[in-house]
Amino acid sequence: MIILVLNCGSSSLKYQLLDMKGDEVYDLLAKGLVERIGMEVGCLKHQAAGKEKIVKEMPIADHTVGIKAVLEALTDKESGCLSTLEDIEAVGHRVVHGGEEFFCSQLIDENVIAQIEKCSDIAPLHNPANLLGIRAVSDVLPTVPQVAVFDTAFHQSMPEYAYMYALPYEYYDKYRIRRYGFHGTSHRYVSAKGAKFAGLDLGYSKIITCHLGNGSSISAVANGKSIDTSMGFTPLEGIIMGTRCGNIDPDVVTYIQEKEGLSAAEVSKVLNKKSGFAGLSCVSSDARDLDAAANAGDHKAKLTLKKLTYDITKYIGAYTAAMNGVDLIVFTGGIGENNSRLRRRVCENLTYLGLKFDYEANVATGRDVMISLPDSKVKVAVITTNEELVIAQDTMHIVLNEEE
Amino acid sequence: MIILVLNCGSSSLKYQLLDMKGDEVYDLLAKGLVERIGMEVGCLKHQAAGKEKIVKEMPIADHTVGIKAVLEALTDKESGCLSTLEDIEAVGHRVVHGGEEFFCSQLIDENVIAQIEKCSDIAPLHNPANLLGIRAVSDVLPTVPQVAVFDTAFHQSMPEYAYMYALPYEYYDKYRIRRYGFHGTSHRYVSAKGAKFAGLDLGYSKIITCHLGNGSSISAVANGKSIDTSMGFTPLEGIIMGTRCGNIDPDVVTYIQEKEGLSAAEVSKVLNKKSGFAGLSCVSSDARDLDAAANAGDHKAKLTLKKLTYDITKYIGAYTAAMNGVDLIVFTGGIGENNSRLRRRVCENLTYLGLKFDYEANVATGRDVMISLPDSKVKVAVITTNEELVIAQDTMHIVLNEEE
Repeated sequence: MIILVLNCGSSSLKYQLLDMKGDEVYDLLAKGLVERIGMEVGCLKHQAAGKEKIVKEMPIADHTVGIKAVLEALTDKESGCLSTLEDIEAVGHRVVHGGEEFFCSQLIDENVIAQIEKCSDIAPLHNPANLLGIRAVSDVLPTVPQVAVFDTAFHQSMPEYAYMYALPYEYYDKYRIRRYGFHGTSHRYVSAKGAKFAGLDLGYSKIITCHLGNGSSISAVANGKSIDTSMGFTPLEGIIMGTRCGNIDPDVVTYIQEKEGLSAAEVSKVLNKKSGFAGLSCVSSDARDLDAAANAGDHKAKLTLKKLTYDITKYIGAYTAAMNGVDLIVFTGGIGENNSRLRRRVCENLTYLGLKFDYEANVATGRDVMISLPDSKVKVAVITTNEELVIAQDTMHIVLNEEE
Repeated sequence: MIILVLNCGSSSLKYQLLDMKGDEVYDLLAKGLVERIGMEVGCLKHQAAGKEKIVKEMPIADHTVGIKAVLEALTDKESGCLSTLEDIEAVGHRVVHGGEEFFCSQLIDENVIAQIEKCSDIAPLHNPANLLGIRAVSDVLPTVPQVAVFDTAFHQSMPEYAYMYALPYEYYDKYRIRRYGFHGTSHRYVSAKGAKFAGLDLGYSKIITCHLGNGSSISAVANGKSIDTSMGFTPLEGIIMGTRCGNIDPDVVTYIQEKEGLSAAEVSKVLNKKSGFAGLSCVSSDARDLDAAANAGDHKAKLTLKKLTYDITKYIGAYTAAMNGVDLIVFTGGIGENNSRLRRRVCENLTYLGLKFDYEANVATGRDVMISLPDSKVKVAVITTNEELVIAQDTMHIVLNEEE
């Protein structure tokens, strides 16, 4: 089944075309990116398997024009990989916020669209863009079934005491302010893949998944279900990230507003865009730049990396207590898969759990590998994530079920 | 040495008069409370050891008038315990915020006063009131030495990566925004007393102290030094408290402001005064009322107590990871000393640490007791706190040193 996977932002659109031959057996036919939608000059970057990468600059007025450009590239004789658009059997969308409505992926119909619209109020940056993508596909490929895969769905199994904040209850009633969590697609995928890789039964295991990238979140997965996660009402809560502050004293938010004369929207921008690695290190929002600066002796870069290590260590400790133990710790995401030093520093502080670290195995980067020794009481694995694959899998299953 | 211990708030003043005969040997001569300072009718509640409690209503214009009223009560023939004010050899003050200046208690001089003033900017509700108390004593007892004991001092040993937030670094340079932590006097006292009680060497132990009351904070004390604590820049951060929210997504603050049309000061008031137990349970800010409501089947009261248990459990887990192990967990404060059910629920989730709980010993309330079994890998103790005693001890030591 040939599936187009779409991840739509407000002015961009990432895609992959996958030929799904089984759950884990697939060909990646093409992938690419549309940028600067709605601006004077937009850009399409496209690469089909085994062909040259192409870059096209042109005005891209809206998401419908962007999707048309993608479909043209996919069927182009030179750069394409499909003979006809009719080969596309389904489209899977990443949708950021499913609110309290969606516990799993959904075949998109008017009711699902209405619910995604309803959640736009609590995800004003993301859900409207996801809806633009869904509507653009409806315009261009009106008969192709579409599936929504939600970042929040996997975390809907959290117990009430883990997702409720200690705020006046009316804010939950009125605005549904609570912890939702994000990166659910990745946490779900790497917890299942990690359990299998480590020889554990997912349904009877305590797993902590550390998705560490430009945005980062850590989850506690007990018996296959997310019971807690570090991101909250928005993707700002949790550990230090590329430009996001993670956890701070809530009164720091009000203090900065008063001292700097900032509005709520302005301070939110500071916390989301100018904090994290970038703000604390004064070097970069990219962990690789921090490593380089730290190696060159930069104090603030070292401090930032120490804080990253410390934040991860504390969450692992907290979730171990939340589950009364841990069987497996999984590292994934750009930083989790590639930063072996960070993994070492985190694990060296967890010997109290009986964790025995495999220093030799840990030098590997970018592939699935066990980095705990065979007699370690807690297993540790690096597991590469693949959110597009999960979206394609869910889309395939839902569409096949519908057809039955 | 007879020492007057003062804890001044903006419109109130708590006091104890102690006769210190040694570090742990003392007589409590009197204690009391002045309320509604500056209002139309103020109130003095006073009780000397072995005498009737007296309550006096009268206008109390300012802190100087309040302290004069206290001194009169202390020397009154009926209700008092001193024949002359000259018997008071020193005054010890609780001062909330010592900023980055003070690592330990200080003999008060003009320089110390200037530094406390400097910290008023980051503790605008507390430090000005503490200064009023210091100045009032200078007016009334000009020759008596005064000592400042800071809530923040014990936590000044935290490493940089534990106290820095991942905010733009300029906010630290400009405003000294960072984690300070509070309740330091209590954490210091119960960690030392707890280590002794459990037969551990404080200098070589990993201790987690849970000070749970109307305000609550949890600290990691490694080898006698605070290395992390749950309260932050202000006493709002950390676990759920009586009326304080504790940790939330920082963008919840800005979201509430925008939805409810609140200023920074107004939302801060909601987070500090209308959240926590009171806000989430819609029952009460008092944990005893929550227990009663939960026993009667109230869902939100049960939820609130579960969240309290869960928050404490996660912090214990996080700090265990931060120290790579834990030797002793201490419960103290009004809730920590008296709520045996809460202690049980927290400890039942920590069996992964080798903690063996002593259910029988745990029924005790309000006195020092070991509540782990002798063969428990992690020891657990209830230790009664006494911040006034620490203030008196510090005051005695500093004044005696000065006299040498």
